[in-house]
Amino acid sequence: MITSAHNPRLRLVRRLRGRRQRERLGLFSCEGEDLVEAALAAGLVPVDVLVDAERPPQLNGLAAAEAVEPRLLAEVSALAHPPRVLAIFRRADLPRLEADAAPQAGLALWRVGDPGNVGTLLRAADGLGPAFVALSPGCADPTAPKALRASAGAVFRVPMGTFHHAPGPRVALVARGGTALPDLDVGDRATFVLGAEREGLPDDVVASCDAVATIPLSDRAESLNVAMTGAIALYDWHRRHGR
Amino acid sequence: MITSAHNPRLRLVRRLRGRRQRERLGLFSCEGEDLVEAALAAGLVPVDVLVDAERPPQLNGLAAAEAVEPRLLAEVSALAHPPRVLAIFRRADLPRLEADAAPQAGLALWRVGDPGNVGTLLRAADGLGPAFVALSPGCADPTAPKALRASAGAVFRVPMGTFHHAPGPRVALVARGGTALPDLDVGDRATFVLGAEREGLPDDVVASCDAVATIPLSDRAESLNVAMTGAIALYDWHRRHGR
Repeated sequence: MITSAHNPRLRLVRRLRGRRQRERLGLFSCEGEDLVEAALAAGLVPVDVLVDAERPPQLNGLAAAEAVEPRLLAEVSALAHPPRVLAIFRRADLPRLEADAAPQAGLALWRVGDPGNVGTLLRAADGLGPAFVALSPGCADPTAPKALRASAGAVFRVPMGTFHHAPGPRVALVARGGTALPDLDVGDRATFVLGAEREGLPDDVVASCDAVATIPLSDRAESLNVAMTGAIALYDWHRRHGR
Repeated sequence: MITSAHNPRLRLVRRLRGRRQRERLGLFSCEGEDLVEAALAAGLVPVDVLVDAERPPQLNGLAAAEAVEPRLLAEVSALAHPPRVLAIFRRADLPRLEADAAPQAGLALWRVGDPGNVGTLLRAADGLGPAFVALSPGCADPTAPKALRASAGAVFRVPMGTFHHAPGPRVALVARGGTALPDLDVGDRATFVLGAEREGLPDDVVASCDAVATIPLSDRAESLNVAMTGAIALYDWHRRHGR
């Protein structure tokens, strides 16, 4: 049982709070039974698993775990309510977008910096998919604690890639002036390109797309949030492709 | 200029942090230029307006405001970055759902307890409307700071009422087993009934509805979040009613 705050396994969890360390080490920490079970169910093998010594959870597919004094687990946790389990996984084990096996629809996110939005869009791609998610530089880290929670486990199932490797054709979603989404001429593939919450998509990114679409809004509304825009685009695409 | 933390106007802002006091006094506090401007643009008249003495904002439609020492404004603020303006409004001045002037579509929320979700659904009703929002007991307070921020000002434009006064016909949205939403037989009015994030809708509420619909999901997904479900329902309804 781990009883010292200086334990190297707890130190590693602390280091993984920061994005730079997660990227450098290629690892991320994942808290709570629901998320850890989603990771195991998706076939990920944990690098380390720490459980609350006083209330260890029963998890399917979990072999060995190290017990930790509750106060120490609470101290390294990013959650308001400390978890019963915390596991470390390799970033390279997350599903990757492969050109020859890409889902027919997907989202490409341009500088979506809020981890809650990135996680929610992963959840939308999972629920309203199959769909991939491609991320530009400047997007929030999908393995940040807030993104993991918002994804509700979708991060372990949705293939992710880089913005520039997302397959075409690309449809820019803009707040005003594009083809109304229900009238868009859709083929059997589409990557919906979404901009940051406030700034939207820069002109050069819109110009690089094959089509420009707009979700019809009421006159007085300024815009939808980016997570809703992505969800509606995937709903509409799958509706028109006969789900 | 207000220079004392004991100033009664600051005391009132502090009291309004709690839902019970907001309900008792019939007031709520609203922070930041975007939200306060949205309230003024919607015709609400503030009970009080406090501005940062060192960087007072220029706001359209704002007559008088009291300057406050920045550290005191920061101390009563619910935001991580203290606002330049904070205004108090009357809850009774928010737009109300009237039976004879209800928009044709709307959302009825059953025990949606997260203020971020309530605010996001108000924003969806505004953007994908016109639509109303009806709230059951147990829903988060739409005038809570997190709800106001998530609504992005929609709370000042969307008519709100109580769950049981929402007009019919009612369509329960459930995660599995209902009519696929695109196949739903829609008339020219609909109230989409949405349940809490984890529990969904209880059986008796579903039984009291006129129809039961489901947003088609991929096989592996458990559910969408409630905010996306509401947004997609309103998008689909307005798509089929020729926006």
